[in-house]
Amino acid sequence: MTRKAIFYHAGCPVCIDAERQFADKLDPNQYQVEIVHLGQTKNRIAEAEAAGVKSVPAFVIDDQAYHINFGADLTALK
Amino acid sequence: MTRKAIFYHAGCPVCIDAERQFADKLDPNQYQVEIVHLGQTKNRIAEAEAAGVKSVPAFVIDDQAYHINFGADLTALK
Repeated sequence: MTRKAIFYHAGCPVCIDAERQFADKLDPNQYQVEIVHLGQTKNRIAEAEAAGVKSVPAFVIDDQAYHINFGADLTALK
Repeated sequence: MTRKAIFYHAGCPVCIDAERQFADKLDPNQYQVEIVHLGQTKNRIAEAEAAGVKSVPAFVIDDQAYHINFGADLTALK
């Protein structure tokens, strides 16, 4: 059964690279990946924060936040 | 064609979680994943450092380092 992985980003170079190398490369038999641009959908910043996301790019899987390198602080997107 | 992704870790809880959620979940049609325990194979710390790895867990893909959260500093493994 596939689980959900949410990839939060903000269009920054670090974000785009992480999307290309990870979000686009996860096994579709394992994860259903949703890509969320927090700069364009600010109403989803709260849910990302609630899951522990501090910066983008980051994944949330099973309610756990996984930050990949550092692109931008979440506070910079508000 | 599959590319190589090296996952460096040190057996720490953050490492084990990242291995389970990412290293084990990358699409085998996209990446050939090699798992390297730097605590047990210290002779590979130099190559990780050369690719820009500062801490584990981290991936190196296309000579770029991708740190996932923070488990342990590389200097703590020497």
